[in-house]
Amino acid sequence: MYEVADLPSGPLDIYRKNASFNWKDMLRFIDGEEMLAFKQHVFKTLENDPLFARRPGEDIAIDKMRELTFLRVKQLFRYNFLSKEEAMANPLKTVILNDCLGMYDWAVTAKYFLHNGMFGATVANTGSGRHTKYVEDVEDMMLYGCFALTELSHGSNTRAMRTTATYDPSTQEFVINSPDFEAAKFWVGNLGKTATHAVVFAQLYTPDKVCHGLHSFIVPVRDPKTLLALPGVLVGDMGKKLGQNGLDNGFALFNNVRIPRENLLNRTGDVTPDGCYISPFKDPKKRFGASLGALSGGRVSITRMALTNLKLALVIAIRFSATRRQFGPKDTEEIPVLEYQLQQWRLIPYLAAAYALEHFTKSIFMNFVEFQIGQVMRDKSDRQAELGREIHALGCSSKPLGSWTAQRGIQECREACGGHGYLAMNRLGDLRNDNDPNSTYEGDNNVLLQQTSNYLLSFLHAKLHDGVRIETPLHTVDFLDDFPKILRSKFTATRMEECMDSAVPLAAYKWLVCFLLEESKKRLEQQRALGKDEFEAHNNSQVYYCRSLSITYIEHNCLQRFHEVTIDQDTPAGLRPVLSKLCALYGLWSLNSHIATLYQGNYMSGRKPAELVQMAILTLCSQLKDDTVALVDVFSPSDFILNSPIGNADGQLYKNLWSAVMQGNQALERPSWWREFCSDKPVVGSLYSKL
Amino acid sequence: MYEVADLPSGPLDIYRKNASFNWKDMLRFIDGEEMLAFKQHVFKTLENDPLFARRPGEDIAIDKMRELTFLRVKQLFRYNFLSKEEAMANPLKTVILNDCLGMYDWAVTAKYFLHNGMFGATVANTGSGRHTKYVEDVEDMMLYGCFALTELSHGSNTRAMRTTATYDPSTQEFVINSPDFEAAKFWVGNLGKTATHAVVFAQLYTPDKVCHGLHSFIVPVRDPKTLLALPGVLVGDMGKKLGQNGLDNGFALFNNVRIPRENLLNRTGDVTPDGCYISPFKDPKKRFGASLGALSGGRVSITRMALTNLKLALVIAIRFSATRRQFGPKDTEEIPVLEYQLQQWRLIPYLAAAYALEHFTKSIFMNFVEFQIGQVMRDKSDRQAELGREIHALGCSSKPLGSWTAQRGIQECREACGGHGYLAMNRLGDLRNDNDPNSTYEGDNNVLLQQTSNYLLSFLHAKLHDGVRIETPLHTVDFLDDFPKILRSKFTATRMEECMDSAVPLAAYKWLVCFLLEESKKRLEQQRALGKDEFEAHNNSQVYYCRSLSITYIEHNCLQRFHEVTIDQDTPAGLRPVLSKLCALYGLWSLNSHIATLYQGNYMSGRKPAELVQMAILTLCSQLKDDTVALVDVFSPSDFILNSPIGNADGQLYKNLWSAVMQGNQALERPSWWREFCSDKPVVGSLYSKL
Repeated sequence: MYEVADLPSGPLDIYRKNASFNWKDMLRFIDGEEMLAFKQHVFKTLENDPLFARRPGEDIAIDKMRELTFLRVKQLFRYNFLSKEEAMANPLKTVILNDCLGMYDWAVTAKYFLHNGMFGATVANTGSGRHTKYVEDVEDMMLYGCFALTELSHGSNTRAMRTTATYDPSTQEFVINSPDFEAAKFWVGNLGKTATHAVVFAQLYTPDKVCHGLHSFIVPVRDPKTLLALPGVLVGDMGKKLGQNGLDNGFALFNNVRIPRENLLNRTGDVTPDGCYISPFKDPKKRFGASLGALSGGRVSITRMALTNLKLALVIAIRFSATRRQFGPKDTEEIPVLEYQLQQWRLIPYLAAAYALEHFTKSIFMNFVEFQIGQVMRDKSDRQAELGREIHALGCSSKPLGSWTAQRGIQECREACGGHGYLAMNRLGDLRNDNDPNSTYEGDNNVLLQQTSNYLLSFLHAKLHDGVRIETPLHTVDFLDDFPKILRSKFTATRMEECMDSAVPLAAYKWLVCFLLEESKKRLEQQRALGKDEFEAHNNSQVYYCRSLSITYIEHNCLQRFHEVTIDQDTPAGLRPVLSKLCALYGLWSLNSHIATLYQGNYMSGRKPAELVQMAILTLCSQLKDDTVALVDVFSPSDFILNSPIGNADGQLYKNLWSAVMQGNQALERPSWWREFCSDKPVVGSLYSKL
Repeated sequence: MYEVADLPSGPLDIYRKNASFNWKDMLRFIDGEEMLAFKQHVFKTLENDPLFARRPGEDIAIDKMRELTFLRVKQLFRYNFLSKEEAMANPLKTVILNDCLGMYDWAVTAKYFLHNGMFGATVANTGSGRHTKYVEDVEDMMLYGCFALTELSHGSNTRAMRTTATYDPSTQEFVINSPDFEAAKFWVGNLGKTATHAVVFAQLYTPDKVCHGLHSFIVPVRDPKTLLALPGVLVGDMGKKLGQNGLDNGFALFNNVRIPRENLLNRTGDVTPDGCYISPFKDPKKRFGASLGALSGGRVSITRMALTNLKLALVIAIRFSATRRQFGPKDTEEIPVLEYQLQQWRLIPYLAAAYALEHFTKSIFMNFVEFQIGQVMRDKSDRQAELGREIHALGCSSKPLGSWTAQRGIQECREACGGHGYLAMNRLGDLRNDNDPNSTYEGDNNVLLQQTSNYLLSFLHAKLHDGVRIETPLHTVDFLDDFPKILRSKFTATRMEECMDSAVPLAAYKWLVCFLLEESKKRLEQQRALGKDEFEAHNNSQVYYCRSLSITYIEHNCLQRFHEVTIDQDTPAGLRPVLSKLCALYGLWSLNSHIATLYQGNYMSGRKPAELVQMAILTLCSQLKDDTVALVDVFSPSDFILNSPIGNADGQLYKNLWSAVMQGNQALERPSWWREFCSDKPVVGSLYSKL
């Protein structure tokens, strides 16, 4: 049995002792012995390797950051924490490895993953036997890969990419061209400094000048011996980003770059040596969908990445709040800020959200694995197709849920730590900055949500028109089949105690999804009746309708899955009470942002319901208050990985902070430019000029 | 007459031509000729001075950033844009200068202001004749000042500061001591690298060991000839922050540092040579309040600073949205993202908020000036005291309103610009990071809001107990006198068109404030009835009650002031329609976040009201859509100051972005560490170790 080490004794002891549950039991319940050991192994390995050494808040120039990141990635190849075989045997281990590396630094993780997972997997999954050499070179790092889809002037509208690949039968080559700089590949991770090869998405033209739509090609961009750009390729670095600066995002402009015919990734379409296009797909839209299908897993992963950031921020903010004392009943006695209702209400609901998302992200990942296995097995059943649609709808809404919850939660943590939260060494800024792109890449959140609402609306349509029973492989929408009955339901709780059960928000969410589904449908019909085309009708039905529909759908599903854990007989009895409280709090707090809709649709009426919900939220926060430190201990990596003096496990807030400040670079030295102060004093107004 | 230059022609022309108003008229209405000329003068001066040159997204080491900032501050002394006399004659000019410099860089502005405004003004206003030399040295930069109040372990609870100043009559000196490192002065702007003198807040002890509470002292910390720390002073730099890194925040630990008796700033209390304490104030609490009174102006300024950040972000996001095309009714024709309902709803309400805050921040600044003049004139009237309380309540809630609106608005702008919003050169990250401390310094937003609710509750108490008529110098609470009648009012609009008038949200806000005032009072009484002391009763009444009360009070006041502008006969007729729409949109959109309360208290009922409000919001967004580009043209500084390629006035989004990327530092060069890729390839798994 894996022995979980005790945490150092200190000012956090009071809260730890008052916790209602055993944190090591929770850790074992959530992670399991094997994963715990694996996590500790990864953490220890990084901590023991001087190449991964760092100092809180250090100021590193971007070029240096990229060099360090690259060296660390090289080291990850050497550690090879997870072999392909192990990953196949236990797919959840890839999630845990990603968590661990991400907790250290997302730029290192992304640089490693974009090469292996994105470039490597795309070549392996969308290419064929003729691309085996590339797959091997990926594994040995003989080349360095990147995934080049988006262009300077196109992101969300992927089909509008303008890079071309024109086949020349005389040499049996494709000629890659960027028509102008607006079609330069842009935002490509790894392309800035290190990529030698890119999977480039381009419009495929055959010699007959017919465009066959977007296809992907392996295009060499730099010489692997010198890292110099190849002729015809203008490739470079986009410069500084808001975060994740260890990762080199780049651009590329192609001027008649010739690549062998075989470099077309030909799973979904190929060109014969003499220039004929052949494809197993009749419909180019379907082919395009299949070639982009790989992206769905990315969204599920991003949801988890966002959660990981939120967890780290909560560890820091909760430990800070439990040790920072300010004001008190008497001038002589100050109390931890965690004791204040306001601080509890600012932080504890996000902690509940993190527990809800912890289960949710693992659970949808396993759903995705099920789908992937079907794909690998070439499962052509209706169920597999349905599962694909459902996973797509989940991914398109789970990413917004995860990334926005983390965005807001980290910001709240930053503010809840006051000035010390604004000090870079305490890491809340980096967490926010590194989390930020989660709402943008692999699809802008708001754009993605439209996919989910379209999915949901299709069921209502099928039900009303064809009387089809609503039932899906993952059962996330089955309750919609009862929608007329659900729409007649009401909020019935009359005492606060009743509300403190996740069944109450769960029922309200079911009503909400049904209500918004019907309202969205009405709104769309109204728009059509006004003569709007489908494009406009959909655009004009997003705000307050389709968008809210998608959000409530995914919040409901997240709550539903967590609710099931709390009533599952396999959940240890000692943990069920605290998990139930977290679940109820998450449900009520999320629901509270939709209360206006509940009143509007008459699910609630009168003063009482909103008040009951709000009082239940505050009561749950106060009941959970003594558990919060133990709850974040469960999430927390080692101090080295957390890298935040105010968040250390020993709770020695000021000692750790002061020590880090005193060891700061040139903290006590006078500035190198001190003479500027002492000489050449400004003559006030000497440069004054009248208007 | 000051001639406003035309903006360059380009892709933004379509929107500019469709605007419903003349942007130059708006500019003149908002700023006036004199301010416009002044602004352009400041902008041009900075642009023409190579010392202020910069490149979008440049990566500068912190020490270099601090050096540059210091050199720029020196240059500001030489420019002396605003003499004391001019500032006295036209106080609004200080606001405009602050806007202009802040639009360039808040760190430069803060470094200049903390020395002049904070150190200099504190010495001038709380010292006496014996401190004249220091005031003169501030003006000539013979010394460099800072304001040292907060300590490592205390921020919000200012009275709990633990630094001591013990009077020694044998040498007629104060001895300054930090009892331990937790009492180190911390977060002090300018103290990190350049301050030679600090205004230090310390507990004053007379030889009889009596503590007379917090007083301020001028303490030399570094030798102005060498910038080396003086004996007994451990002074240094706190390191990197989330933003504003040109400003050197620092710490200081004092070990028996002796300063002359005269260095006590003695406006509110003094010590005689033989060690007797004398004060014009009987009540030490009152004295303390008076000595911190200077901070109120800071909060009013911060509200404006936050607005300035929001404006810049909106200029960038709106111009981007008007030129970025993505998707369209047909595959061949893409439309600007500004045409989408979702994008409009994400951005235009913030633009309306910026217009509301534009008037609001100037107007409360003038209220503050009125108060300041009273102070200078030693006005001891009740009205002056009442004015002080009202300004305090306004400042304590306007700072949260401004800083949070900016925080959320900038984040929305960042996300609304997609990936390009994540590129550092486009500045949205810096705006967010530089805006962030606005919610923390000069009082944490949530803590400050309690001051405002206490103020409001005191009126209800006085009214109910003593039948006092509620009336205040600035009339921000006068309507409360009618609270029973207001509480009986209802939402009566039945058509969307009716709602598109700011009178509708205004009336709803009046009801909200009255409702929340009464509910807060009830909640407090309930807590007292449960036996809680005042400390706990207040703490337990914040969430959903007192906190919401303060927020609705300040939103109401901001809306009220804007509403008055829209109906003012002096407002040009050509501008009134667009201003009215902005005002209605701001009111409805803000109100929408409180709709649950409106239903809860039965001000609204049934499906219609929320729907009307929401449809009015969407309709106003769509009606304002063609005005947005002109509306941000009004706010926009020159391209040089804005410093964001995607936000340039010519609207050449991609040309400007591409050009900036191509000129990036080492954009096209291979990395200096290229050999790391080409040699010493990792052997996969060579460092693998079993668990």
